[in-house]
Amino acid sequence: MTQQIAVIGGDARYLELIRQLQALPDTTISLVGFDKLEQGFTGLNQTDFADLEQRKMDAIILPITGTDSEGYVETVFSDQTIQLTSEWFDGLNDTAVVFTGISNQYLDAVSEASNVELILLLSRDDVAIYNSIPTAEGMIMMAIEHTDYTIHSSRVMVVGFGRVGNTVANKFAALGAKVSVCAKSIMDLARITELGHTAIPFDQLHNYTSECDLLINTVPAQVVTKDAIQHLPPHGIIFDLASNPGGTDFDYAKQRGIKAILAKSLPGIVAPKTSGKILADVIKQLLLEREEKIR
Amino acid sequence: MTQQIAVIGGDARYLELIRQLQALPDTTISLVGFDKLEQGFTGLNQTDFADLEQRKMDAIILPITGTDSEGYVETVFSDQTIQLTSEWFDGLNDTAVVFTGISNQYLDAVSEASNVELILLLSRDDVAIYNSIPTAEGMIMMAIEHTDYTIHSSRVMVVGFGRVGNTVANKFAALGAKVSVCAKSIMDLARITELGHTAIPFDQLHNYTSECDLLINTVPAQVVTKDAIQHLPPHGIIFDLASNPGGTDFDYAKQRGIKAILAKSLPGIVAPKTSGKILADVIKQLLLEREEKIR
Amino acid sequence: MTQQIAVIGGDARYLELIRQLQALPDTTISLVGFDKLEQGFTGLNQTDFADLEQRKMDAIILPITGTDSEGYVETVFSDQTIQLTSEWFDGLNDTAVVFTGISNQYLDAVSEASNVELILLLSRDDVAIYNSIPTAEGMIMMAIEHTDYTIHSSRVMVVGFGRVGNTVANKFAALGAKVSVCAKSIMDLARITELGHTAIPFDQLHNYTSECDLLINTVPAQVVTKDAIQHLPPHGIIFDLASNPGGTDFDYAKQRGIKAILAKSLPGIVAPKTSGKILADVIKQLLLEREEKIR
Amino acid sequence: MTQQIAVIGGDARYLELIRQLQALPDTTISLVGFDKLEQGFTGLNQTDFADLEQRKMDAIILPITGTDSEGYVETVFSDQTIQLTSEWFDGLNDTAVVFTGISNQYLDAVSEASNVELILLLSRDDVAIYNSIPTAEGMIMMAIEHTDYTIHSSRVMVVGFGRVGNTVANKFAALGAKVSVCAKSIMDLARITELGHTAIPFDQLHNYTSECDLLINTVPAQVVTKDAIQHLPPHGIIFDLASNPGGTDFDYAKQRGIKAILAKSLPGIVAPKTSGKILADVIKQLLLEREEKIR
Ligand SMILES: NC(=O)c1ccc[n+]([C@@H]2O[C@H](COP(=O)([O-])OP(=O)(O)OC[C@H]3O[C@@H](n4cnc5c(N)ncnc54)[C@H](OP(=O)(O)O)[C@@H]3O)[C@@H](O)[C@H]2O)c1
Ligand SMILES: NC(=O)c1ccc[n+]([C@@H]2O[C@H](COP(=O)([O-])OP(=O)(O)OC[C@H]3O[C@@H](n4cnc5c(N)ncnc54)[C@H](OP(=O)(O)O)[C@@H]3O)[C@@H](O)[C@H]2O)c1
Ligand SMILES: NC(=O)c1ccc[n+]([C@@H]2O[C@H](COP(=O)([O-])OP(=O)(O)OC[C@H]3O[C@@H](n4cnc5c(N)ncnc54)[C@H](OP(=O)(O)O)[C@@H]3O)[C@@H](O)[C@H]2O)c1
Ligand SMILES: NC(=O)c1ccc[n+]([C@@H]2O[C@H](COP(=O)([O-])OP(=O)(O)OC[C@H]3O[C@@H](n4cnc5c(N)ncnc54)[C@H](OP(=O)(O)O)[C@@H]3O)[C@@H](O)[C@H]2O)c1
Repeated sequence: MTQQIAVIGGDARYLELIRQLQALPDTTISLVGFDKLEQGFTGLNQTDFADLEQRKMDAIILPITGTDSEGYVETVFSDQTIQLTSEWFDGLNDTAVVFTGISNQYLDAVSEASNVELILLLSRDDVAIYNSIPTAEGMIMMAIEHTDYTIHSSRVMVVGFGRVGNTVANKFAALGAKVSVCAKSIMDLARITELGHTAIPFDQLHNYTSECDLLINTVPAQVVTKDAIQHLPPHGIIFDLASNPGGTDFDYAKQRGIKAILAKSLPGIVAPKTSGKILADVIKQLLLEREEKIR
Repeated sequence: MTQQIAVIGGDARYLELIRQLQALPDTTISLVGFDKLEQGFTGLNQTDFADLEQRKMDAIILPITGTDSEGYVETVFSDQTIQLTSEWFDGLNDTAVVFTGISNQYLDAVSEASNVELILLLSRDDVAIYNSIPTAEGMIMMAIEHTDYTIHSSRVMVVGFGRVGNTVANKFAALGAKVSVCAKSIMDLARITELGHTAIPFDQLHNYTSECDLLINTVPAQVVTKDAIQHLPPHGIIFDLASNPGGTDFDYAKQRGIKAILAKSLPGIVAPKTSGKILADVIKQLLLEREEKIR
Repeated sequence: MTQQIAVIGGDARYLELIRQLQALPDTTISLVGFDKLEQGFTGLNQTDFADLEQRKMDAIILPITGTDSEGYVETVFSDQTIQLTSEWFDGLNDTAVVFTGISNQYLDAVSEASNVELILLLSRDDVAIYNSIPTAEGMIMMAIEHTDYTIHSSRVMVVGFGRVGNTVANKFAALGAKVSVCAKSIMDLARITELGHTAIPFDQLHNYTSECDLLINTVPAQVVTKDAIQHLPPHGIIFDLASNPGGTDFDYAKQRGIKAILAKSLPGIVAPKTSGKILADVIKQLLLEREEKIR
Repeated sequence: MTQQIAVIGGDARYLELIRQLQALPDTTISLVGFDKLEQGFTGLNQTDFADLEQRKMDAIILPITGTDSEGYVETVFSDQTIQLTSEWFDGLNDTAVVFTGISNQYLDAVSEASNVELILLLSRDDVAIYNSIPTAEGMIMMAIEHTDYTIHSSRVMVVGFGRVGNTVANKFAALGAKVSVCAKSIMDLARITELGHTAIPFDQLHNYTSECDLLINTVPAQVVTKDAIQHLPPHGIIFDLASNPGGTDFDYAKQRGIKAILAKSLPGIVAPKTSGKILADVIKQLLLEREEKIR
């Protein structure tokens, strides 16, 4: 029995993703929103959205960004406007699964109403950790570009020791920076110490920023406050990796003349191929488990 | 107001622990079971167990091993026999706190019955992570002693990626070994990959042991089974760090002629001073928080 | 007795260099070719070239690039044309020392004729090693920018294990790349192995390029030949760090459709401040030793 | 044409060495001084020294220690007394090559007189670097054994940055120690900095020993003098890896109550198999080149 997958929209990462999905046995892939792609995929169906028979689909792959609040999806390789209405969702088969990077109220609502499973790829621990690698490399690239000194010997404060913070701290230390990491839990503080970084309890952050050249935030909450910013040296620079709107008081940084940069979507920018492969590996794995369950 | 602490028994680690506790302000420390100690502590009370007024104590520090199933405690530096009966526990003040490394049914029961708080130091995430450092160093020492080849370039399989497994894997990789780590969760497998080790799903362990020189177990469950052992090369060697009785089928290993070593209590053996300091830091921190709460 | 230094021309690195030299005691610094500088230096003499009394100078600092073949120097922060003729050199005091990054026939000739010491900063082992750090970071930045995959897990071949090759190999390995290094001497091959990289004898390079994603050349001789290039995978990319014209057969790479990039002057581009400090440290050290000798 | 090799004496390393040489094609190996070996080698000739026809030999492999000053060789696996007299050397073929680890006046003299080539394996850069790996691991083992604190977070001073010093510094840093390295040349100091260690100019050593827990000497000259030792903290410990008699003022250390250990022959002790393989690889390579030249 053949498995039917539709990819609806997506960015550069999706080219690798699609390439990888092609390796699946007994699978038919329909591409919607890739009509402007210069180099086509041999053996795949470029389908018009209107012509897609969604009831036949076993899996729908949405862009990493999901939909906007009205169901419109981002199509980098097409001029088409594609809207996934609640009616369209109702047309999906009950057993269908919908992949997206992140969700929002709209997407949550329509998928629930139409009773299809919605899988948030970026929320998965494994995807988040694998993605932390290109994120950290993008961070390194920016640090090299935006400073006139080397990472080697520079003093770096990483705020947060989650999936991204952990990887970022390790990479900067590997390049010879003197890394401090600011975290809440005693477990994190112990691990930070074991790894050779300086562990800073969260409520102490502002006491250490005077001694830091780069401050890298990974916490999705307002944690890089006036207190922390005002002690930074004039050449200090803030990179905020946390999801929009970041965790930095950007206004205050500006006022103080401290450069502060909100860096979004690094994996897709610096390593779309690797990022596409990360997504593909997980989707392939999940589809396989699904199929085994069905049989 | 002075804080009263009694240390009842303990091993080499406790010398450093006591030294550190002496730095606490407004604190009186009574030592029970240290009468054979060659170099005494100046300014501390060597007390006979019978003379200890337990009701006055704010904190009792038991050996890392706690008590045995009848309440006897290990006293490395004394010939005294000390038994902590349920009556003795009843004599403790309600607000007293009892520190131990690990507990057992007996200790759980008497502390609950007498309504005192029992703090298991080795169960704490921070202690476990800090202790993973001397554990890993002890593991390295044993690997160097028990093999006739270098760690550099050797193939090491670490089973388990908890607090100990993580540290052990990192240290062996840092010394140039080719490290694989075997774990269950997708999150662990992703982090293992990020760290540059080879990630092996748990149920695949036996398929990779033929390619490994050292197998290091950190999982406290029977996971190094016949299947895993039988594919080890003849010069392969197993180190089991998991708490007694380890996670290895030692009988089968013996039968197959594979050297298998159960290594216990490494922190206390290879780095009693560091281990004592780790315990002291946590105890001091907890006593401090306690006092703040009381006030 | 005051020491007189003239800085004639130079790029962004020289701003930090000058800042550092200002810390020298009993030193007068004259700046020639910095008239367009927006932020001036307080307390330094901006001097017109014509007005510089070269006979009074103890030290002359030329741009890193030295002069061109007719004695003209590069002045990034000025529109002046400055030519250091042999007559001008004759006007220098015998005991004067001239600092430059690199030399050429012209500069060698005029300094020898006028009997002044010429110090080639970039030829010094310490400068070359310190500079290898920003060079390697620049290389990392380019690798991240010019590929759509991560450095982590990519296969990197470093050609040459001199001062730059050694540092580049270490940094890429630290970021999780699988690094091979190609070198001639048995000593280098042994050290490469000790460091955990794969050691490739020089004459074997072409046998290993089929397995490599990034090829980074650091050897200033034609060593990345057709043989080596033709086995690279289509997505393979060549970075050539060796001094102009590099060590790559760029024509053949182009013909084969392999991207090949000659990357020059990375330290000055990615870390002018650090690079300026490196130069300043050495110049300060040499001036100090000089003064001690004179006394 | 078959190649004839005689192995005369040797220690545990030589078991692996012999095993590896067995893989050479068209080679006959005679073992002299291995009669007490429990597990024999199948297919090799155990020969009595008196019966060895030395004129037929293409290569003679002496113990790593060479001979003593009268030509006696060390035979760990035999009770025989074997003396290599000058007459015996005269009986060797002109084209024969004699391998040894180190030489002495006697060995130099007799080999020169009889006109055979003497190859000092331990003097070779590649062997010295490969051997620095088991040396460093032995050093780690001793550090763990002889201290009551962890290597992690300890302050280590490595004296000398040659083949051994470089490797030792890297390994201790990899285990989380704070490493300083003391060296003479500006090149070494630059590389030490690049590697992330603290670089100490040689003549400054004594100013930094008060801040160090472990002092590891690798310089074969009296460099760890009173000056350096007297500032060590009481718990400080000295390990001297330099060849006999080391580079430490052991008398003064004893007088000051500082533990000081001269550690010899670590590779043969901690990793005889790896060490044997290192020697075998070089001998095989040299025999191969030799044969190619002869043909
Ligand atoms: N810019 C990019 O390209 C990019 C790429 C990937 C991810 N991201 C973003 O980066 C951020 C971090 O991702 P992640 O995967 O590392 O997440 P994560 O694993 O959940 O880590 C978040 C960290 O923030 C800490 N934290 C959360 N709320 C906090 C608060 N109120 N105060 C103090 N600490 C707090 C957490 O500490 P506890 O665990 O102790 O709560 C944890 O250490 C997210 O916003 C994510 O969307 C950006
Ligand atoms: N020898 C010594 O000197 C020494 C020193 C310190 C600790 N230890 C001992 O070492 C062991 C590990 O300590 P730790 O602090 O690393 O503990 P931990 O953080 O709890 O880690 C245990 C690991 O084992 C895995 N695991 C547990 N049960 C499993 C099962 N049935 N099958 C597969 N995996 C399983 C866990 O995986 P999940 O998280 O996915 O469940 C986790 O990765 C303990 O027994 C501890 O007492 C010994
Ligand atoms: N792009 C930039 O921003 C930048 C920055 C700094 C330096 N550079 C340039 O990078 C290059 C390397 O600098 P470096 O400081 O590393 O020089 P280096 O220390 O002299 O190293 C050169 C390496 O090339 C090898 N080599 C030289 N000629 C060779 C040949 N014919 N065949 C094979 N191998 C050969 C040497 O091997 P042996 O030692 O065995 O001879 C050595 O390993 C120079 O051209 C330098 O100008 C560029
Ligand atoms: N214990 C063991 O098991 C073991 C194993 C292997 C080797 N070793 C011994 O370890 C020692 C070092 O071996 P290696 O291969 O590293 O030798 P190496 O490469 O020659 O290094 C020796 C180092 O000592 C420095 N040095 C020499 N004389 C000096 C002096 N008078 N003052 C200051 N520095 C001086 C050298 O500096 P410059 O280069 O600037 O001169 C160099 O850094 C040797 O004695 C060797 O026999 C012992």
